[in-house]
Amino acid sequence: MERRYFDWAATAPPEGGPEPGAFGNPSSLHAEGRRARERLEEARSRCAAALGVDPRTLYFSSGGTESNAIAILSFLLRRGACLYSAVEHPSVRENCRVLERLGRSVGTIPVEADGRVSEAALGRALEKRPDTRFAAIMAVNNETGAVNDLEALCRLIRGRPGPPVHIHSDLVQAVGKTPTDLSAWDLDSASISAHKLGGPRGIGLLYLRKPLEALCRGGDQEGGIRPGTENTSGALALAACLESCIREEERRRGEASARMDRLIRGLEAGGRFVPIPPDRRDGGDRRFSPYILQAAFDGVPGEVMARALDQAGFAVSTGSACSSAHAGRPVLQAMGLDPKLSLEGIRISQGWSTTAEDIDSLVRAVSKILEYL
Amino acid sequence: MERRYFDWAATAPPEGGPEPGAFGNPSSLHAEGRRARERLEEARSRCAAALGVDPRTLYFSSGGTESNAIAILSFLLRRGACLYSAVEHPSVRENCRVLERLGRSVGTIPVEADGRVSEAALGRALEKRPDTRFAAIMAVNNETGAVNDLEALCRLIRGRPGPPVHIHSDLVQAVGKTPTDLSAWDLDSASISAHKLGGPRGIGLLYLRKPLEALCRGGDQEGGIRPGTENTSGALALAACLESCIREEERRRGEASARMDRLIRGLEAGGRFVPIPPDRRDGGDRRFSPYILQAAFDGVPGEVMARALDQAGFAVSTGSACSSAHAGRPVLQAMGLDPKLSLEGIRISQGWSTTAEDIDSLVRAVSKILEYL
Repeated sequence: MERRYFDWAATAPPEGGPEPGAFGNPSSLHAEGRRARERLEEARSRCAAALGVDPRTLYFSSGGTESNAIAILSFLLRRGACLYSAVEHPSVRENCRVLERLGRSVGTIPVEADGRVSEAALGRALEKRPDTRFAAIMAVNNETGAVNDLEALCRLIRGRPGPPVHIHSDLVQAVGKTPTDLSAWDLDSASISAHKLGGPRGIGLLYLRKPLEALCRGGDQEGGIRPGTENTSGALALAACLESCIREEERRRGEASARMDRLIRGLEAGGRFVPIPPDRRDGGDRRFSPYILQAAFDGVPGEVMARALDQAGFAVSTGSACSSAHAGRPVLQAMGLDPKLSLEGIRISQGWSTTAEDIDSLVRAVSKILEYL
Repeated sequence: MERRYFDWAATAPPEGGPEPGAFGNPSSLHAEGRRARERLEEARSRCAAALGVDPRTLYFSSGGTESNAIAILSFLLRRGACLYSAVEHPSVRENCRVLERLGRSVGTIPVEADGRVSEAALGRALEKRPDTRFAAIMAVNNETGAVNDLEALCRLIRGRPGPPVHIHSDLVQAVGKTPTDLSAWDLDSASISAHKLGGPRGIGLLYLRKPLEALCRGGDQEGGIRPGTENTSGALALAACLESCIREEERRRGEASARMDRLIRGLEAGGRFVPIPPDRRDGGDRRFSPYILQAAFDGVPGEVMARALDQAGFAVSTGSACSSAHAGRPVLQAMGLDPKLSLEGIRISQGWSTTAEDIDSLVRAVSKILEYL
């Protein structure tokens, strides 16, 4: 049957003609809306199957930052103290500081020299704030690749007497890259971003074991947890990249570990290389993501090395792209690193299409730059 | 020069190979990041030129709902009372209610029977809350098409003694559809959504005359106003649809007015048609958007009519797609409409590719349905 569309105020057909099946507003009740709703729920089911969770626990958001903000800011409507690890991503750290500014009791969980949260440090932080009801501990640190033992940390929190603690984890650098088992980890909420997995910007997931009351409001989309017209095509693209990244995770991680080993050995051979954290690490070390290396070169400020590498054709970074240029290196300083060394850190992060030849070229480029600096 | 990318932790190249020029994280300092930054700023400049404002006043967000939330929730960090018109979109209304729940003084500005905010009603609302520092008044109502005289309403607020009031306007149904002059209206903030203009989901704009302190935090993207990795391709798509919609606005509005006239006359001729608001309206009436008609058919619940039309191949809606199915029709009730009549309302909204033939078919379909109901 020919369709005539009179719901432009809900959503307009895309310029250049409607994409079949996904153009309607999923919250509209007409055929166009229902088709879009089906596609959205198909995307949710595919994400759920890839992650091994119930589709009803997944909420589409605009990305990792928003997913973190929804989970954290919902605590403005609840009671109790909040804890976050000292190396969290700015989207966790800064929102926890907003809670603090609005009068909530908020504390940090210190990390060890390797950048990881230990059970002992977590236990002490909980003792200091017995009214803790929220704890944010990331799975994989975005600057050092440090991997937390979330299963053990969750167990410790759950074993405590007193009212339950909501455990939130930023999984942005973990899903599809390191072993991630939402169904085993006993988390209450978690964040996932599509664009870190080769998907588009502007789409991500918030996992919520149970629905929460969100601070930001609007329509009833996504169960009222994340209002705003649902991004159907983004959700489908996220489902596709999540499926392929999780399916290939183990194989790709093995390859990434071998390349990480090659990188570390190569940089060691070149001299002046100081790994951060200082532990001797090989590519297969389970304490670190094989995709991320934080490295310093003695006497060379990180920004100088990053710029020199950029000029030589290599894209590396200092710190998180989400960090202010003026903020220093809070993650490295939280690890107790000497401030001078922390300013020498650069982050080298690889992916599935990185090759051994890329690694060798990078090692040679670093050596060459060090000759001049 | 061949580039080798070692910043996967910032953003991954899209599956299927990088889009040239837009794939990097615009907050990264390397060549890929700088190119993405250039594209993002190009998108911002194009949006600014289309809207006639300074590019530094535009912040990319995930859409209209988030833009409204940023402007409103920032008032949790500020003092004074807040006002919102009684017919605001849920993303304004519900966030204002969050302010109220967190202890702020919040009031509504009643609307007249035509769904518009009058200067008299606004004046009374301001007198009732002399400590008002924030007022949200939408430009075009999403359910009735009622157009507020923002220039006059802003003037009234500015003419008041006392500390300045932040004036926010949801422009989602206005930009590209009705005369919208950000540079003349004296607003402090405004919201725009791409997907209402034929652009993609997940991207929108927040206009801010001066930067504000946002509640939700994260990285320093978009001046700290809207954290999260910038959606470069979404921003470019928004720029393109904004340019074409604003360029074509007057011509398309003329055509839409003629079709709206045809629609109203056709429905009148069919009988049982009750326009909402009850005023006699023609297609060119400046008090209403020519793109939106709220209509009731005597004795036929809106949901029944919408479903019957859907089955006949026509997509119309009842209320906003963002409204809960259980919430009734708060916009129509705020206009003082009889509750029975308000439940009979359906929204017919057209766009630039709607034809006179579409209108005639719809009118015939309504007539035919009315024969059976």
